[in-house]
Amino acid sequence: MEKQGLLYEGKAKRIYSTENNEEVWVEYKDSATAFNGEKKAEIGGKGVLNNEISSLLFSRLKEKGIESHFIKRISAHEQLVKKVDIIPLEVVVRNVAAGSLAKRLGLEEGTALRHSIVEFYYKDDDLGDPLLTDAHIELLELASREEVELLKIQGLKVDSVLTEIFEEAGIKLIDFKLEFGKDSEGNIMLADEISPDTCRLWDIETNQKLDKDVFRRDLGNLTDVYSIILERLGGKEACTK
Amino acid sequence: MEKQGLLYEGKAKRIYSTENNEEVWVEYKDSATAFNGEKKAEIGGKGVLNNEISSLLFSRLKEKGIESHFIKRISAHEQLVKKVDIIPLEVVVRNVAAGSLAKRLGLEEGTALRHSIVEFYYKDDDLGDPLLTDAHIELLELASREEVELLKIQGLKVDSVLTEIFEEAGIKLIDFKLEFGKDSEGNIMLADEISPDTCRLWDIETNQKLDKDVFRRDLGNLTDVYSIILERLGGKEACTK
Repeated sequence: MEKQGLLYEGKAKRIYSTENNEEVWVEYKDSATAFNGEKKAEIGGKGVLNNEISSLLFSRLKEKGIESHFIKRISAHEQLVKKVDIIPLEVVVRNVAAGSLAKRLGLEEGTALRHSIVEFYYKDDDLGDPLLTDAHIELLELASREEVELLKIQGLKVDSVLTEIFEEAGIKLIDFKLEFGKDSEGNIMLADEISPDTCRLWDIETNQKLDKDVFRRDLGNLTDVYSIILERLGGKEACTK
Repeated sequence: MEKQGLLYEGKAKRIYSTENNEEVWVEYKDSATAFNGEKKAEIGGKGVLNNEISSLLFSRLKEKGIESHFIKRISAHEQLVKKVDIIPLEVVVRNVAAGSLAKRLGLEEGTALRHSIVEFYYKDDDLGDPLLTDAHIELLELASREEVELLKIQGLKVDSVLTEIFEEAGIKLIDFKLEFGKDSEGNIMLADEISPDTCRLWDIETNQKLDKDVFRRDLGNLTDVYSIILERLGGKEACTK
């Protein structure tokens, strides 16, 4: 297995081709960005932490029957994954009001929702990743009605499994963002990453924020809290098995 | 029929009780507001024009089988309507991209949509009337799932009839906002007003804006264009019959 040409560079990862046309090589970067790229920093060690956490969570999800693009961890900051075309929708699942939902609906941050909800945002930096309704998604032909229903169901399934995994680690899963892709046969599968960059994670006892809000709101050292997440989930040993 | 105590004063109308507990007296004001009240003006004659146009349109909708709260025009700036509790949702129906939809989806203003869409906004000035998905509406218990479906269907029915009425008058119906209310028996019915304050209306030939965008964007004299709308729809005689 060899890393070949750079296919794509995003805010947090670089994607390279491999000799296998169905697989790509993912390199996690140390870059942190927030507010649609307005706030930026290089944070040494962040790439490794997110790769380890994401590898671990994709492995755990697979054990629970939820497939993803994840094939294996290659190194401390690299993964091998199935090549997919990303559907340009951020699938956000929320259990507790925080961030833009708290603001939009006028709910106090920390209010438990009566039931978990799924939201869709348009992956478009120029537009600022706006919230979309089902009607907008249909209009823009970003996904069919059936695909939207599938994404909602998958989002809630992932929520149920992740909530349990984090609870066992003493962590409350507040909300998280998923991305899905289509493989060469058109199968929709979970993709991108699952890490403290893409989840809101609060300590179950103290409500201490253990996620990217630490960077967004200048609440402390990012790698310190990401390290807490990795340790509580069982450390990097857990994802190399 | 007598006007009694003031029940409610909004940005564009005052609502008074009458001796009949099921009916209220609506007075259209000359106030114009935009951008969630940030831009304000008093425009003499606006209240009369909106009352005449709204009375006319509610009458025409009734002829086409669409009931509303409208009972009758009382005077140049007053209507008698059924008393309803307004559902706190702005039901926005769109045929052509304009305003916030054009901005949200990155579409050029004037782009015809492949099919008409219905959006919901939370009637809450403090929150800036945010866009809501079906999941948000359910979460906030603003309307049941069945009621949301009913509002979508009613919105599209009104769209179909209004589009025809305006087309015959040489006017393109770009988009519009409806509000619905519940009467004392829980029946949902169309309420509020339908006027150039709540619709985007463009001349079918020239695309000249004949609606509140003239005020929002300082494009000319508001009562001049509202008068064009009233005249083309048949004048105030049409709504006193």
